[in-house]
Amino acid sequence: MSDVTTTDLYEVTMAMSYLREDMRATASFSLFVRDLPPGRGFLVAAGLESALDFLARYRVQLDDLEEFANALHRPVQDLEPLLGLSFDGEVRAVPEGHVMFAGEPLLEVTAPLPQAQLVETYLLNQLCHQTVVASKAARCVLAAAGRPLVDFSLRRTHGPWAGLQAARLGALVGFAGTSNVAAAAALDIPASGTMAHSYIEAFPSEEEAFHAFAHAHPGPVTFLVDTYDPEEGVRIAARVLTELQRGPGCAIRLDSGDLDALSRRSRATLDAAGLADVRIVASGGLDEYGVDRLVRARAPIDVYAVGTKVGVAEDAPYLDAAYKLVEYDGHAVMKLSSAKVTAPGRKQVFRHAGRPDVIALAGEQPPDSAQPLLRTVMRGGRRTGSPDHWQDARMRFREDLATLPRSALRINDPEAVLPVWSEAVARLTASVRADIEARLRLQGRIAPSDRAVCRSDAFAAHTH
Amino acid sequence: MSDVTTTDLYEVTMAMSYLREDMRATASFSLFVRDLPPGRGFLVAAGLESALDFLARYRVQLDDLEEFANALHRPVQDLEPLLGLSFDGEVRAVPEGHVMFAGEPLLEVTAPLPQAQLVETYLLNQLCHQTVVASKAARCVLAAAGRPLVDFSLRRTHGPWAGLQAARLGALVGFAGTSNVAAAAALDIPASGTMAHSYIEAFPSEEEAFHAFAHAHPGPVTFLVDTYDPEEGVRIAARVLTELQRGPGCAIRLDSGDLDALSRRSRATLDAAGLADVRIVASGGLDEYGVDRLVRARAPIDVYAVGTKVGVAEDAPYLDAAYKLVEYDGHAVMKLSSAKVTAPGRKQVFRHAGRPDVIALAGEQPPDSAQPLLRTVMRGGRRTGSPDHWQDARMRFREDLATLPRSALRINDPEAVLPVWSEAVARLTASVRADIEARLRLQGRIAPSDRAVCRSDAFAAHTH
Repeated sequence: MSDVTTTDLYEVTMAMSYLREDMRATASFSLFVRDLPPGRGFLVAAGLESALDFLARYRVQLDDLEEFANALHRPVQDLEPLLGLSFDGEVRAVPEGHVMFAGEPLLEVTAPLPQAQLVETYLLNQLCHQTVVASKAARCVLAAAGRPLVDFSLRRTHGPWAGLQAARLGALVGFAGTSNVAAAAALDIPASGTMAHSYIEAFPSEEEAFHAFAHAHPGPVTFLVDTYDPEEGVRIAARVLTELQRGPGCAIRLDSGDLDALSRRSRATLDAAGLADVRIVASGGLDEYGVDRLVRARAPIDVYAVGTKVGVAEDAPYLDAAYKLVEYDGHAVMKLSSAKVTAPGRKQVFRHAGRPDVIALAGEQPPDSAQPLLRTVMRGGRRTGSPDHWQDARMRFREDLATLPRSALRINDPEAVLPVWSEAVARLTASVRADIEARLRLQGRIAPSDRAVCRSDAFAAHTH
Repeated sequence: MSDVTTTDLYEVTMAMSYLREDMRATASFSLFVRDLPPGRGFLVAAGLESALDFLARYRVQLDDLEEFANALHRPVQDLEPLLGLSFDGEVRAVPEGHVMFAGEPLLEVTAPLPQAQLVETYLLNQLCHQTVVASKAARCVLAAAGRPLVDFSLRRTHGPWAGLQAARLGALVGFAGTSNVAAAAALDIPASGTMAHSYIEAFPSEEEAFHAFAHAHPGPVTFLVDTYDPEEGVRIAARVLTELQRGPGCAIRLDSGDLDALSRRSRATLDAAGLADVRIVASGGLDEYGVDRLVRARAPIDVYAVGTKVGVAEDAPYLDAAYKLVEYDGHAVMKLSSAKVTAPGRKQVFRHAGRPDVIALAGEQPPDSAQPLLRTVMRGGRRTGSPDHWQDARMRFREDLATLPRSALRINDPEAVLPVWSEAVARLTASVRADIEARLRLQGRIAPSDRAVCRSDAFAAHTH
């Protein structure tokens, strides 16, 4: 499975036609989220790093041509104009970790039209998926209100690759660790792991299971206490920890039942046993809603493990994102039909803490001391700087979070912040719309054989 | 990222302890879905083939040991007992494509305890994700009621790997094609692709865009007609097709707006132009609910393209699945706490058309002429037969579908079929529960130093 053929076939059919028509002029595409899903007051930009890796290595090889040809039932020679095509365009994008809102471009590609078109599917795939998961994980961080969170999602993510990303995106928004060994190794994230119920069941008693585990692991251990009777399990865990003189750094884990009530009773049992420094880890179907309820109830839980619902972003597993042509050959373009109208022209987002973001045209001056969010991250098909790490993105996320209104940070029914459009965007949109409508009216009146005339008229009317 | 380290760390900490205690006796784990999500009347078993590939190649290498050691902050020597460990156990499983219900094992692993434990995370990942997506796609097939469906999900799946699976799982349940070139090539699925709005926008007029596309693609073409004004778009498409004498096999695509109304007007326009053989393709945010509404309204849509919501299984992106120890060293085991009680012992599912499935113990005789669903697919770590293809699974799915009650097939508020448990399972569950409860009571009364006694007692009490 090559990255190049990991594409919708239509990118290829369009590129073939562009090349045949010699339409290699510069095109700009804007990738943005139309609307935030319910339950999201903001998004966390993510996916840019793997998207840039993809663009940097993009090159159509002979094997790819053969897959294209087979898909189209065409001889491979028909695809030859695509052979060797690589991406040598410019990318302006919002670095990972920034908080984003509806309509704001996450990324803009400016490149010869065939190239810019061919990379659409993969770019959308990367930015949508990763922004979805980062945005869900970010809400868990809000809900945990400073308590450590650990990613346990690998067993339910949509494949191993999505599991790796879930670990990375958790770390990016502030998680303390992951259960995923491959992710921990690849990304330098602390790994975390305890034991499953099966471990306890394989021993004749919980006590023996805990003893055996402690003997195999001389460092801090976490005992899973709810295989049979959780309250008895905590008492046994306390006894074993006391016998072995293993308190500090150790923990017990509750994975089912009423986590609020069980954590209180567990805390009391541990404290009574002189194990005030033994922590309580909670897991089992938690996401930001579950964590928030427990934190608000002041359940004495020290660490939250979140998995399934966060790794798949259960309540909003996709974004309504688009990759839209906004300029071609020096002309602003847009789509008109139905509700999916898009604003033409390359954009910039200006941010000024305490005010709504301004979505402006790329060439506009920032209002006052507002900061532009999109940076030029690739030029001539090469990164303009070294790759970013999730640690850098984490800093950005922390800083942005501090500027958000409380209504966007709420766990229940958050209100998304709405950016405003600059006057220049509004003017350009109105002008391009008027041009297209005039052209459509004109085309209705002329015969198909006058197409060449229509073409030049339309371009002439297409003022920037 | 190795498959071996694509695991929760706790599988490793448990395996280390098992090996230290010389607990290498045979264990059986059962992988099943506890409850079906709302909106599902059945599941479609999927993920087995990639799970078996994983097991067949499983082997802990030195690189893996180093990742484990780093994750645990332990010297690599401490992990050495794991080096070279491979999977040489038995797998009994339900072949892909079978319709399944809550509580029915999709797969059972029988192997030395450390092996059977280490593969847990990856097996859950594969079977959960793929069963989730296959089950969603299956409902689209029901809704389409015989009309062809095409997978357009790649841009929004959780990564490229999930996109490949979405294409495969669509094909498995009966889709006619996919837009994903890599998937089409790797899996021999028909590829399908038209054009995007950006293509139209890059030309001065729709008419010129359609002409250029038709010239680049001499075979059947599909024109996207809703970039500006969909009704005008259809008229232009009809004119171009007529001019070029390109009707049969061609189509127009509607991607937004009121698909029911637009498809009727488009049909009328095409018919009036003598293009009765030009088909109408509909796309844009569709899943089984949207397709069902259009089919019931008798919208004249010939082909449905489904993407986003199906590729991520939007309304149920995960399953409440478990991989539970059911036997160890000849003894049936189970977990007691909270609502997550599991039935002990290895299982078989007996199916007899027109009756509820029976979940029985593995050794039981089938009632009447019922068929056992779990087959031995791996023995001694090797597949017992050649790999299955999605085409085989598609046959199974079709056959099973024909036996389901209408209530399970409904698009809105389907009722899941409930299997029944055999008397032998019920007896074993009651007996193991009584044993564990007796043991827990006993342990409460004896001092920790009597642990050795407790161990043998407990095992003695653990009757099969």
